[in-house]
Amino acid sequence: MRLSRYFLPVLKETPAEAQIVSHRYMLRAGMIKQASAGIYSWLPMGFKVLRKIENIIHEEQQRAGHIPMLMPTIQSADLWRESGRYDAYGAEMLRITDRHDREMLFTPTAEELITDIFRANVSSYRDLPLTMYQIQWKFRDEIRPRFGVMRGREFLMKDGYNFDLTKEDALHAYNRHLVSYLRTYERMGLQAIPMRADSGPIGGDDTHEFLVLAETGESEVFYDSQITDLKFGDREIDYDSREQCQAVLEEFTSRYARTDETHDEAVFNQVPEERRRVARGIEVGQIFYFGTKYSEPLGATVADADGNQVPVHMGSHGIGVSRLLGAIIEASHDDKGIIWPEGVTPFHCGIVNLKTGDAEADAACEKIHAALIALGLDPLYDDTTERAGAKFATMDLIGLPWRITVGPRGLKNGVVELTSRRTGESEEMPPEAAVAKIAEIYGVAAA
Amino acid sequence: MRLSRYFLPVLKETPAEAQIVSHRYMLRAGMIKQASAGIYSWLPMGFKVLRKIENIIHEEQQRAGHIPMLMPTIQSADLWRESGRYDAYGAEMLRITDRHDREMLFTPTAEELITDIFRANVSSYRDLPLTMYQIQWKFRDEIRPRFGVMRGREFLMKDGYNFDLTKEDALHAYNRHLVSYLRTYERMGLQAIPMRADSGPIGGDDTHEFLVLAETGESEVFYDSQITDLKFGDREIDYDSREQCQAVLEEFTSRYARTDETHDEAVFNQVPEERRRVARGIEVGQIFYFGTKYSEPLGATVADADGNQVPVHMGSHGIGVSRLLGAIIEASHDDKGIIWPEGVTPFHCGIVNLKTGDAEADAACEKIHAALIALGLDPLYDDTTERAGAKFATMDLIGLPWRITVGPRGLKNGVVELTSRRTGESEEMPPEAAVAKIAEIYGVAAA
Repeated sequence: MRLSRYFLPVLKETPAEAQIVSHRYMLRAGMIKQASAGIYSWLPMGFKVLRKIENIIHEEQQRAGHIPMLMPTIQSADLWRESGRYDAYGAEMLRITDRHDREMLFTPTAEELITDIFRANVSSYRDLPLTMYQIQWKFRDEIRPRFGVMRGREFLMKDGYNFDLTKEDALHAYNRHLVSYLRTYERMGLQAIPMRADSGPIGGDDTHEFLVLAETGESEVFYDSQITDLKFGDREIDYDSREQCQAVLEEFTSRYARTDETHDEAVFNQVPEERRRVARGIEVGQIFYFGTKYSEPLGATVADADGNQVPVHMGSHGIGVSRLLGAIIEASHDDKGIIWPEGVTPFHCGIVNLKTGDAEADAACEKIHAALIALGLDPLYDDTTERAGAKFATMDLIGLPWRITVGPRGLKNGVVELTSRRTGESEEMPPEAAVAKIAEIYGVAAA
Repeated sequence: MRLSRYFLPVLKETPAEAQIVSHRYMLRAGMIKQASAGIYSWLPMGFKVLRKIENIIHEEQQRAGHIPMLMPTIQSADLWRESGRYDAYGAEMLRITDRHDREMLFTPTAEELITDIFRANVSSYRDLPLTMYQIQWKFRDEIRPRFGVMRGREFLMKDGYNFDLTKEDALHAYNRHLVSYLRTYERMGLQAIPMRADSGPIGGDDTHEFLVLAETGESEVFYDSQITDLKFGDREIDYDSREQCQAVLEEFTSRYARTDETHDEAVFNQVPEERRRVARGIEVGQIFYFGTKYSEPLGATVADADGNQVPVHMGSHGIGVSRLLGAIIEASHDDKGIIWPEGVTPFHCGIVNLKTGDAEADAACEKIHAALIALGLDPLYDDTTERAGAKFATMDLIGLPWRITVGPRGLKNGVVELTSRRTGESEEMPPEAAVAKIAEIYGVAAA
């Protein structure tokens, strides 16, 4: 993509309303623009990262055997009355009256509707297990929205729901979600620690939140430092294997890690003192097993092998998709701007032309740009006539992990410069070698 | 995908509320389920087709140089007051009051918000031309929603907006959209005819609707039969070339083709009688040039080359994404069910095991299933224990364009059967040949 043809409205000044670094950088890098309090437009570069995060979630959910679908944003109040949550939900639910005076709402979550779909279509234990999920916009009418996409009102969420015959089956679904979430966050360059959590308005016994450590986190967290040494890595998992999923759960949850909601000072004090950590964390996901809490009131039953009607065991499992952009930036930035992990970067690398208009520099940039595109990569080529300093400042701010700098002086010696955004280190090499290096980093075959 | 692990709730009976064939088949094939009047959940197979359609639109929009982004569904009433449409829009606008008593709405279209983004960030003619688009859920509170996804209340729409310095530039953007839409619809297996249309509440002089001929269409259409012989085909277009885009516009709009809104009997009668056609059509898209209708009241101006502030020339361009599923089915079905065009089929082919449990048949099916997946294809394998007749009926209903039938008798002779859903013709061949044929149809390299 040529920057001259893109829409990247970078701001020089820091907007006054932004209190945390991710909000400041998302505004300054032209990723989002506030439309109303807690409601944002996703400008092209913000939307690009959002789609990358969505795609990783889709891939990992489907790898775990979960089935994608989509429910509407506007729902009737009726189902929520059946479950008893219509009155319980409070002012955070955006309530709407349509032209026929029917009570509707903008859905904050979808346990009721998915259970309605299930009960209308599934009647036998033979159709279980079943896990479906969606990535859909939700609305919670926060009284004081803040921190940009971290605590907005309209937000994108992945919500998945499992239906199982027995508690044991449902706990396997729970474990499967835990495993797939660990993989998902790692692919985004995040370490998200599963912590024992409180079930809140969804209800249920078993629940873990996934927290990313960051100074600006909304939760205080308490953990055994050994937990941050755990990596999921590229291990192969058979998601049908209860043993394998259970083993991962045990590995990642056996050390102390809790939010302030479930913190137990006495248990924490059994961790050796030098390993006790108190920090702050950003919640980026949560998994729940809640048994028959919804299937009973909503009549979601199946016939078991003996022909008895039994309510199904359920769980729900969420990832805060739009807030992940904020969490990633909180976890990965410096004073110049964002530092995108390779897995979610909006462009694979930047190309800076130090002297747009110079025939040789222009030709070299065009060639690098075309070579990267031919490899299936997506570079951002700054072909504008801004001065070099401004081009570097923009590249640093928007945080592409790699930058190829092309100028007449280097080209005289047959080289361009390849720079890592994370380390700041630069290396001179021929243009072809820079292209090959980028190809290697992203695991695509060089031509 | 193994059917035993998928969620495909096929209905035997035709739901009473469905009046047109696409609505009936979408319900019976387990693609959608009504959540409230005019509001649907997209069950897994429906969601799959929706995503395919979205992806084709994204690819073709970006090929034309248009930039994807995303605006929120809930917007403040303030901007709509600035443009004068808040009061003009009437009861179809879903109006909402939030917890702070602010007037909000679920956006039916986004001219105001995109113009606000533009005016806040663009100030010079140097930043033009610019076309941005989104694929986002919209809401129109239809008084009598009907025909399933064809006239729903919550619907998915692609809406794109161009910003140009002059009328001439904006008309090139208009033509570019016309060309990209022709390509888009053809990739979905649709012939969508651009017809001169009425501008309605969006306003403006130039507008074409794209209509798919179908008996159940909501519009009466009048056209010269020569127009249905036109094909866009696989011609290469340089979207920056005004001449090329203008030539396509002229080719596809020079013959008489109008909806009842703009029909002119006197002009129509100049078409030779044997070429005059009166039929019905489904609107699947519309493009508009509306000049400075929004840029003037909203103050979206840029400095031109002489430093004068001038309002930008705009247009907006929509595709009814969710209604396209209905339109495709209306245009492509028979009395057994849907017949998906290859470009949008939810699965590339079906595999029917005539005798699940037979070791040889099971092994042959598994091998075909694995071979297709290894090629990057996405088959649906009916591995259930239903009888053969029921399996065939389901495959015909859900409309996968190709079916591989595997049974012990054929396998004794070393063959399976490959059947075209469209023609009903079957051919016996070795399993490897069937896989190779499917690979060839979808243009993937056989191993």
